[in-house]
Amino acid sequence: MTLHSEIFEQPERLAALLEKQKQTVLEIAKAIRARNVQYAFLAARGTSDNAGRYANYLWGAHNGLPLALATPSLFTYYQSPPQLKGALVIGVSQSGQSPDIVSVLEEGRKQGCLTLAITNVPDSPLAKAADLVLDIQAGVEKAVAATKTYTTELMAIAMLSTALNASEEHWRELASVSKWADQALALDQRIAQMAQRYRYMSQCVVLGRGFNYATAFEWALKLKELTYVIAEPYSSADFQHGPIAMVAGGFPVLAVAPNGKVRASMQDMLTRLRKQKDAELVVISDHADVLALAQSPIQLPPQIPEWLTPLVCILPAQLFACHLTEVKGYDTEKPRSITKVTETH
Amino acid sequence: MTLHSEIFEQPERLAALLEKQKQTVLEIAKAIRARNVQYAFLAARGTSDNAGRYANYLWGAHNGLPLALATPSLFTYYQSPPQLKGALVIGVSQSGQSPDIVSVLEEGRKQGCLTLAITNVPDSPLAKAADLVLDIQAGVEKAVAATKTYTTELMAIAMLSTALNASEEHWRELASVSKWADQALALDQRIAQMAQRYRYMSQCVVLGRGFNYATAFEWALKLKELTYVIAEPYSSADFQHGPIAMVAGGFPVLAVAPNGKVRASMQDMLTRLRKQKDAELVVISDHADVLALAQSPIQLPPQIPEWLTPLVCILPAQLFACHLTEVKGYDTEKPRSITKVTETH
Repeated sequence: MTLHSEIFEQPERLAALLEKQKQTVLEIAKAIRARNVQYAFLAARGTSDNAGRYANYLWGAHNGLPLALATPSLFTYYQSPPQLKGALVIGVSQSGQSPDIVSVLEEGRKQGCLTLAITNVPDSPLAKAADLVLDIQAGVEKAVAATKTYTTELMAIAMLSTALNASEEHWRELASVSKWADQALALDQRIAQMAQRYRYMSQCVVLGRGFNYATAFEWALKLKELTYVIAEPYSSADFQHGPIAMVAGGFPVLAVAPNGKVRASMQDMLTRLRKQKDAELVVISDHADVLALAQSPIQLPPQIPEWLTPLVCILPAQLFACHLTEVKGYDTEKPRSITKVTETH
Repeated sequence: MTLHSEIFEQPERLAALLEKQKQTVLEIAKAIRARNVQYAFLAARGTSDNAGRYANYLWGAHNGLPLALATPSLFTYYQSPPQLKGALVIGVSQSGQSPDIVSVLEEGRKQGCLTLAITNVPDSPLAKAADLVLDIQAGVEKAVAATKTYTTELMAIAMLSTALNASEEHWRELASVSKWADQALALDQRIAQMAQRYRYMSQCVVLGRGFNYATAFEWALKLKELTYVIAEPYSSADFQHGPIAMVAGGFPVLAVAPNGKVRASMQDMLTRLRKQKDAELVVISDHADVLALAQSPIQLPPQIPEWLTPLVCILPAQLFACHLTEVKGYDTEKPRSITKVTETH
């Protein structure tokens, strides 16, 4: 099955990207530092937009760089793009083909901003519209549901953060990602078994916070694309401001809660969901007390630095979505209604 | 019922806000113009975050002002706020009390940025942390589900846009909002009848685009808070990049598609959903062909300028959520698990 084998390509692709593109990333960082960049303005859709959510937290926390997620329709339908002075304009797209994302970069360049394309197709329209191109080198992605291009986009974002900080410690930590990814994939058979329990799940929410807000969105997207489960992602804080009302006994809540600064806040929410609301919990974590709250605990390899957990946490989540698709009797290779390259305006 | 009566207060509250706060808004606009503001950095949660989504499109389209939605956990849990040079830092909160939103403004002020609070409580911690305060004057909101504070937040955002542009035409258009709101509320009985059909709806998606992306989010939030329906909001473009796979025959899709620049794109999506996927459509629009696609059409008053449609479209959506709550046998005044003021960190 192509989806499953592409999920298993990830440790190798991540290692190769880190090795082969480090020099390019250092040059991109140099070009960025040479400009008076005050914030990043990032355009993406779908899986790539979720990678953008990681950039929002990582570049904010590690690089002090605020990030605005673009609203592409302002550039296309409304034809009234904002003034982008001071912005580094970034487009993230596997195919580099969606016209609305390309138009954001074209406008950024027209306004004299520095522009960067993060893409799997270095001769795509998106790459051609950009001053700087970061090729994620994931190889051709055949499965409709994106997996290896998501994690390589995250790796590209993490490498750029590291290059901007010139942090040798972070480069060293990045070198272990491929090994952790391998360890996470060893959960494959256990997750295949676990997915049985969710054969008749039709809806769920997916919680994550901080760096793993992105992971919650991407896990939910894989479930929607592949299993047709209505899966809605939230930060645990936004969830508390209203949507928690939906949860009644047995309601399934999937959560990404590894060690780190937001772990205690996630643990409080999961404790409340389990003890007071009798929710059903599927939890990805490396923390024993958090895992103990879940009917379905998914144990991460230990000692991953918090900023890199999104690159590893998504792997068991991808496996969960992949196996649940089969358990539900659907075709992982032919999700209904969607195509590999979606062109929106 | 308090919720229903607060929904009906909106025409009056909107008119009063426009009249009483115009001078304050002009002064705020003057203070903003005196600074070298390159983008807005806005922090909010829940309903107020949806008002921020409107600001994202409106200020982008009418004022050329890019907007970044803040990630408050960077300011609280991670304690590594981004460098906000060049930003106008804005907090939007009905109560003005959530510590994470207050901390974003405090940090903005510390970094020397101009700060603005948009709130219903002008002596709240949020207001005290801000250089500029825009009091939305909605009166005490007793219902747990926010309605009048959402539309007055939108009005405050629209007034600020108009003041920044010094557009007399836009001030004139704003003066009609209260009348359109009145006309929209006349749909009350029809919507109460319509809600019967959705007695057993347990999940749905809510689509909107451009200015009404915010409306889709806010409609979905009211449904989640009050009716416990799993309601997931999307722009029609993001929906196409994956989640459309969830839709099978009879799947309910709620949509906000008034006349304007994105109407044709919404109409294409709704046509596909109805004709190819046999979806169930509830549609708010003022366009006959769009309404004709819906099993449950909700007709807006005619001739509302597109930029002001979010202030009117949300009213029938609020009524729909309110009546559906009663139809399902729940209490509109006591949604489970949520409180009026949610304090997140």
